[in-house]
Amino acid sequence: MPNPVDTLTPRLRAICGDEGVITDSTRRRTYESDGLAYHAAQPGVVVLPDTPEQLVETVRVCAEHGVPFVPRGAGTGLSAGALPNSDGVLIVTSRMRRIREIDIENECAVVEPGVANLDITRAAAPYGYYYAPDPSSQQVCSVGGNVAENSGGAHCLKYGFTVNHVRGVRFATPQGELVSLGGKAVEAPGYDLLGAFVGSEGTLGIATEVTVRLERTPQQVSTVLAAFTSMDAGGEAVSAIISAGVLPSAVEMMDALSIEAAETAVSCGYPPGAEAVLIVELDGPTPEVEAQFAEVVALCRSAGAFETRTASDPEERARIWKGRKSAFAAMGRISPAYIVQDGVVPRTALPEVLRRIGELSAESGVRVANVFHAGDGNLHPLVLFDDSEPGATERAAEVSGAILDLCIEHGGSITGEHGVGVDKACQMPRMFSPADVRTMERFRAAFDPAGIANPEKLLPTPRLCGERPGVRKTEHPLVSDGSAELF
Amino acid sequence: MPNPVDTLTPRLRAICGDEGVITDSTRRRTYESDGLAYHAAQPGVVVLPDTPEQLVETVRVCAEHGVPFVPRGAGTGLSAGALPNSDGVLIVTSRMRRIREIDIENECAVVEPGVANLDITRAAAPYGYYYAPDPSSQQVCSVGGNVAENSGGAHCLKYGFTVNHVRGVRFATPQGELVSLGGKAVEAPGYDLLGAFVGSEGTLGIATEVTVRLERTPQQVSTVLAAFTSMDAGGEAVSAIISAGVLPSAVEMMDALSIEAAETAVSCGYPPGAEAVLIVELDGPTPEVEAQFAEVVALCRSAGAFETRTASDPEERARIWKGRKSAFAAMGRISPAYIVQDGVVPRTALPEVLRRIGELSAESGVRVANVFHAGDGNLHPLVLFDDSEPGATERAAEVSGAILDLCIEHGGSITGEHGVGVDKACQMPRMFSPADVRTMERFRAAFDPAGIANPEKLLPTPRLCGERPGVRKTEHPLVSDGSAELF
Repeated sequence: MPNPVDTLTPRLRAICGDEGVITDSTRRRTYESDGLAYHAAQPGVVVLPDTPEQLVETVRVCAEHGVPFVPRGAGTGLSAGALPNSDGVLIVTSRMRRIREIDIENECAVVEPGVANLDITRAAAPYGYYYAPDPSSQQVCSVGGNVAENSGGAHCLKYGFTVNHVRGVRFATPQGELVSLGGKAVEAPGYDLLGAFVGSEGTLGIATEVTVRLERTPQQVSTVLAAFTSMDAGGEAVSAIISAGVLPSAVEMMDALSIEAAETAVSCGYPPGAEAVLIVELDGPTPEVEAQFAEVVALCRSAGAFETRTASDPEERARIWKGRKSAFAAMGRISPAYIVQDGVVPRTALPEVLRRIGELSAESGVRVANVFHAGDGNLHPLVLFDDSEPGATERAAEVSGAILDLCIEHGGSITGEHGVGVDKACQMPRMFSPADVRTMERFRAAFDPAGIANPEKLLPTPRLCGERPGVRKTEHPLVSDGSAELF
Repeated sequence: MPNPVDTLTPRLRAICGDEGVITDSTRRRTYESDGLAYHAAQPGVVVLPDTPEQLVETVRVCAEHGVPFVPRGAGTGLSAGALPNSDGVLIVTSRMRRIREIDIENECAVVEPGVANLDITRAAAPYGYYYAPDPSSQQVCSVGGNVAENSGGAHCLKYGFTVNHVRGVRFATPQGELVSLGGKAVEAPGYDLLGAFVGSEGTLGIATEVTVRLERTPQQVSTVLAAFTSMDAGGEAVSAIISAGVLPSAVEMMDALSIEAAETAVSCGYPPGAEAVLIVELDGPTPEVEAQFAEVVALCRSAGAFETRTASDPEERARIWKGRKSAFAAMGRISPAYIVQDGVVPRTALPEVLRRIGELSAESGVRVANVFHAGDGNLHPLVLFDDSEPGATERAAEVSGAILDLCIEHGGSITGEHGVGVDKACQMPRMFSPADVRTMERFRAAFDPAGIANPEKLLPTPRLCGERPGVRKTEHPLVSDGSAELF
C-alpha cells in the first residue's frame, strides 16, 4: 500500500527544493526518535524548510491533504515530543538558524526557530546581555524546541521558564496560516495566547520566528558548593536560605550516588565523604550579592556543611559546576543503562519524597541517583539498571513510574521541564479533571480541527492509552493517521 | 414583548435566593455602566451569587437558555467591559468577598473574585507580605475584575501586570462547567491557558476563585521626586536611569497642567515652576536600594532637575505620591469634564509622541494633561473639555482618538491597562492582522460556542463596528442578543 505522504513529496520538493526533502530510508532513520530513544518510528518523509515561507507552505500542503505533521528542532527532547508518524511529515527546523536581530534598545533578540539556545547568548554577550533559560542541552537544543517544551534549566528558580522569556512568536497554524502572538511591546490587548503557545509541544503549529527577552549580564555572580554528611542536612540548608528571603539564581543538589558517578567520569574533586552537595549561586548587583552571599554561606554552615567552597570568577565557578553538569552523562560510568525521570513536588515535600524514593530503591534493589533543582522542587531521579539482565528494564520502569506516583501523591506534577509528549500523555488525567482535559481538547481543536499537528502528543487518546478509567474518548478526532475507526 | 430573561428569573431566585436577584428597575439602574459612564444600558436582570456553586449554576442556566451574561466586579473598569445587555443577565461578584487562605509557606493567597485588591495586602501584611499589582482604584476594585482586565498599576514596571501574579483560577466556563487553570504549584503540564484567561475580559467565563502570588514586603523603599523645567529634561532622566541598568519599581511623570490640577485639588506642594515632575521609586534589599538610589538622584540632577526631594519613610513617601495619586480626580478642579485615554508606546518613542500630543492640543485648542507610567511607555493623556459647550465633547473625542492613532503609528498599543471592552473593540483590526483576529475568534468560540459570554466586548463585530474595511464578518455568532439576522 502506498504511503499517503508519497503523493505530497513532489509538492514538498517544489517548496523546499531537493536538498530540503529526505525520502531515502537510511537517512530518514536518523530522525526516528528524539532524546527519549525508547520511542521510535520512521517518519514518512522529512522536510527541512530553509525560510519561514517554506515552513508555512509545507504546513499548508499537509493541511490540504489532511496529512499529520510533527515538528522537530534539534531532537534533544526527553518526552518523545518529536516522535515521527510513519504516515506523516516530519518538519525539521535545523536549517533555520539565523539570528535576525539583536535589539539592545528594546532588550530583545529576534531569531529563527532552529537557532541553538546558547547562540543567542553568544550573539548578545558583546553588548553585555544574555538569554537566561539554560537547559542542560543548551549548546545544541533549539529555541523552537525550547518554546515547544517550555524548557527550564538550573537558573529557572530566579529567572523562570522559557515562557517568561518569550515576548513574541510568529507561527504557522495547523491550517497553514501565519499568525503573530505578542512582539517587542510588553503588553498587547486581546487574548494573551503566547503563554499557551509556549509549552504546547507543537500541537498548535510551528514557530517560524521567536522574539526573546535579553537580560543584562549580572554585575556579580557568586557560587558556593557546600558538602553535607546527609541529604537531610542539605535540605535544611535550602529551607533556611529560602526562609531568609534570599532568591538564589540556582540551588542544585546531588546525592552520594550522583557524586560518585560524576567523580568517576570527570574527577570533579568534590569533598570526600559528602553524602550530599549543594550548589547555590547568587547573581545581581554587587552590593546585594555580597551581603546575601555571606548569609548563604553562614546558613549552609549552621545547617551542618562540613566544607564550603566559594567561587566568584568564571574559572572557579566552572570547577564547582563541573560535577553537576556532567551528572547525567556520567551515569554511564556506573551503570549500563538508566532512565531520567522528571517530576515536581512542592519544595516543602522534598525531604519526605526523597526518603520515600530511598525506600523504593531499597525494596526493589534498583539503584536511584538523585540530582535536582532543589529550589523549585524539580526532581531528576536517575533510575539505574543493566539492560542485559532479564527483567531489569521492566523493574527500572516500574520504579520510575512509582516515583511519578509519589510526586502526584504529594501535590506535585508529572513533569517539571521535559514535557508530556507521547511519554506521559496517558498520565494527564491523573492531574486534571475531565472538565479540565475537555477544555484543553477544545482549545487544541480550535487551532487544529483536523487533528494533524503532532497527533497523540500531550493529551491522552484511547488509541494511545486504552479505554482505561480516567481516559475518555476524545470529542473530535485528534489523530488522523488512518486509525479513525478506533474513535 | 417580554424580555427573554424574565423566564429565567424564577430559576435564578431558586439558585441565589431573593436577596441575590434584582429585577426592580430603579435598583437595576445602579448597574447600567461601569467607570466609563458614556456607555450605558440597563441589565435585564442582576444576579449576585454568594458562593462559587451559585455562580456556576447561574451561568449554567444562562447557557441552557442561550441568554447572554456579563460579569461585573466593583464596576470601576474604564473600557465599558461590564456594560450590561438589556436582554441579558448581569452577574455581579460583590458578595463573594472571602479571603479563603493566606498561605505563607507557599507565598500565595486564595481569594474569592469580589475581594478588593487592597484587602489582600491588608490580610498579608501581618506576615510581612503584600500583593503587588496596584491599580489606582485598588481600595475598591475587585480581584476578579483585575484578572478580567489584566490590570496594571504604578509599580508594574518592575513587578509586571496582574498576569504575572495570578497562579491559578477556578472559573465557570460559558457552558457552565467548573474548570481549574494553574494552582499553587509553579509549573503544570498541558496548555498554559491561565495567561489567556487573565485579560480575557469575561469572554471565557467568570472566575469563582483566584490564587495570587504574595511578595515579601521589601526591606527598603526609597522615593525621589525630581522637578524639571521641561518635559524633555524629565524624559532624559528616565532614559539615563534605564540605561544605567536600574529597574525602579515605579517611574511616574506629570506635566505642568497635571501639576496645576493636583496643586489646586490637594495642595501637594510640588516645586513651584516645575514644567515636569518625575517620581522614581526603588525597592528591594537595603544595600542594593541605597547604592542605586544615590545613582538615580545623581542622574536626575545631571539631566537638569532643579530640585529633588527624597523619602524613605511611609509618611514622606505619601507626601510625594499625593499629587500623582490625586491627578485624575483633580482634573475636575480645572475642567468641567475630561476623557482619560490609555495608550502605550515603546519607551524610546515617548519624547516624540509627547511632542506630537502637544501639537495636537495647540492645533485643536483642546487642553491635554499628561500623567503617565514613563518607565513602560504607558500614557494616560487627560483630554479636557467643557461638556456644556456645543461641539466640545466631539472635539475632545477626536483629539483622544488622534492620540490613539499616534500610539499605533509609533508601534504601540491601543490600551496599556484599561482593557478593550466595548470602547476599543472596533480598533482591534488596526493592531492585528485578519489571521490574528480569526485565531482569537476561534479561541473564544472554543470556550463559548454560543457566544453568550460578555458579547460585543474585546473583538469587533459588524453590528458594533459596521462593515468597514478591516472589520470582517465573524465566523460564528458571537452575539446572541436577538440580532442574529445581522450576521
